[in-house]
Amino acid sequence: MIGFTGAGIDRADNLRHDPERIAALAADPAALILRLAGVDPVLDPSGRLEWEPLGGHDQHIFLGLSDGTPLFAPMPRIELGRTAWSVFAILDAMAADEAALWGGARSLIEWHNRHGYCGICGSATAPFRAGWGRRCEGCGAEHFPRVDPVVIMLAEHDGRVLVGRGLHYPPRRYSALAGFVEPGESIEEAVARELAEEAGIAVANVRYVASQPWPFPGSLMIACIADSPSDAITLDATELADAMWVDRAEVRAALDRTPDARFQAPPPYAIAHTLLRAWLDSGQPQLAPAAPAA
Amino acid sequence: MIGFTGAGIDRADNLRHDPERIAALAADPAALILRLAGVDPVLDPSGRLEWEPLGGHDQHIFLGLSDGTPLFAPMPRIELGRTAWSVFAILDAMAADEAALWGGARSLIEWHNRHGYCGICGSATAPFRAGWGRRCEGCGAEHFPRVDPVVIMLAEHDGRVLVGRGLHYPPRRYSALAGFVEPGESIEEAVARELAEEAGIAVANVRYVASQPWPFPGSLMIACIADSPSDAITLDATELADAMWVDRAEVRAALDRTPDARFQAPPPYAIAHTLLRAWLDSGQPQLAPAAPAA
Repeated sequence: MIGFTGAGIDRADNLRHDPERIAALAADPAALILRLAGVDPVLDPSGRLEWEPLGGHDQHIFLGLSDGTPLFAPMPRIELGRTAWSVFAILDAMAADEAALWGGARSLIEWHNRHGYCGICGSATAPFRAGWGRRCEGCGAEHFPRVDPVVIMLAEHDGRVLVGRGLHYPPRRYSALAGFVEPGESIEEAVARELAEEAGIAVANVRYVASQPWPFPGSLMIACIADSPSDAITLDATELADAMWVDRAEVRAALDRTPDARFQAPPPYAIAHTLLRAWLDSGQPQLAPAAPAA
Repeated sequence: MIGFTGAGIDRADNLRHDPERIAALAADPAALILRLAGVDPVLDPSGRLEWEPLGGHDQHIFLGLSDGTPLFAPMPRIELGRTAWSVFAILDAMAADEAALWGGARSLIEWHNRHGYCGICGSATAPFRAGWGRRCEGCGAEHFPRVDPVVIMLAEHDGRVLVGRGLHYPPRRYSALAGFVEPGESIEEAVARELAEEAGIAVANVRYVASQPWPFPGSLMIACIADSPSDAITLDATELADAMWVDRAEVRAALDRTPDARFQAPPPYAIAHTLLRAWLDSGQPQLAPAAPAA
């Protein structure tokens, strides 16, 4: 399973714009609200999310229906732009199919905290659509949750792929290079631009592999692989501490957490892990397209 | 060429954070600024964008370097959320390789107009990073251009694909269904959710086909195709006026603008057009992966 996917609930989007239906769901004695520590997940001993009766909470987000049970998330005030590294230890311990539900809630909570005022007129905004939007109390403008598309990619050359070290990575960690998609460019153009900027690599034949939502705070990670005719690296030292080409044996050792691996791979819930695994499993110089699900 | 891609300039992102370099580029007598009518493009008789010497303009966006020539866009005040249908006639007349440059500028201009105030504290913001960001004059928060990922997709069943009519489409126009990717879901999950919501279609095996930036006002369109085991449609009448299954002959007639075509296809610069063409060209019940560029 790709990290932060597979929530497996019915988002019931059609109910969000109906305050009476949402109020009825919130009044349902079975309704649950996600327990959080700040904005981090709280796990039970089996690694599953903890929930509590919705009860008296008033500011909340409707997440959807799980086998008919209405699920909500709170809307706490949080410190912006801060991700304690400890949350990644929690994610290591978390059941894989639980991460998506918490991740979506985390993204929405940070978005609410960043949009208490209207960008257009500066007046205060208030939540509407069951927590899936905010409306300006001054000009009436409606604002909707932001999702930032990010490309994350491997350049491939002669049986090796390019991995890099961000400036603040844990020791020995290398990952796929990544960057935000900008206005006015396609996914494929963003992949080519980022590889050129950060590593001086010119690529062709960009292939999509997979995607995941990433809740720190709200990205859509779009994983690709592309062919590089050259292995010469020109590092952008403002973005990367290092970059290097690694072969299949080195990638396998990293993913298997072999003690003498040349580098430490990203954790399984990161799509860079999925991407390295997909490249490894493809076994061919050119990656096969994503396999049909069934 | 996919619409709104292929700008073919060097965005020179690394210069944006260097006000002195940007000032020197703006002072270059060769520097050009895009001519606009409101926010719409102004074309010369050959369908190419018109430019004028940067001269006295002060609030502007650095678009990048074209063969060494610094290109800028103005930052006019515009009416928000309005797209005159006439702009689509201009796009019909526009050289395909020019649309990307204007499209990126258009997205940035609307973003500036929507973010004159800080969402976090409500203070006024001012442009920085050569027009690729705004900084709050109150709390100092930095804000960056927004790009909204949107999935646009064909469900396929037994040699036919599903097309739908939005509530405000031109007469006889049908297109691929589409919707915003939400926090907490992957591209594949968004495709499945939107087809379920809008047409009651349950799909498997979602395949990525292509992407494009769409400047009304700032989406990243992500085109996919997916298998539907059933052709039963349950229409969401709040989203769609109609939906229907069309076969290859019907799609070909629509793309070729045959007078008696069953429906009118989206214009060539829309990725729905690219998607229908890719499905048609695939010739197989299952679409081949996007062809390598070279």
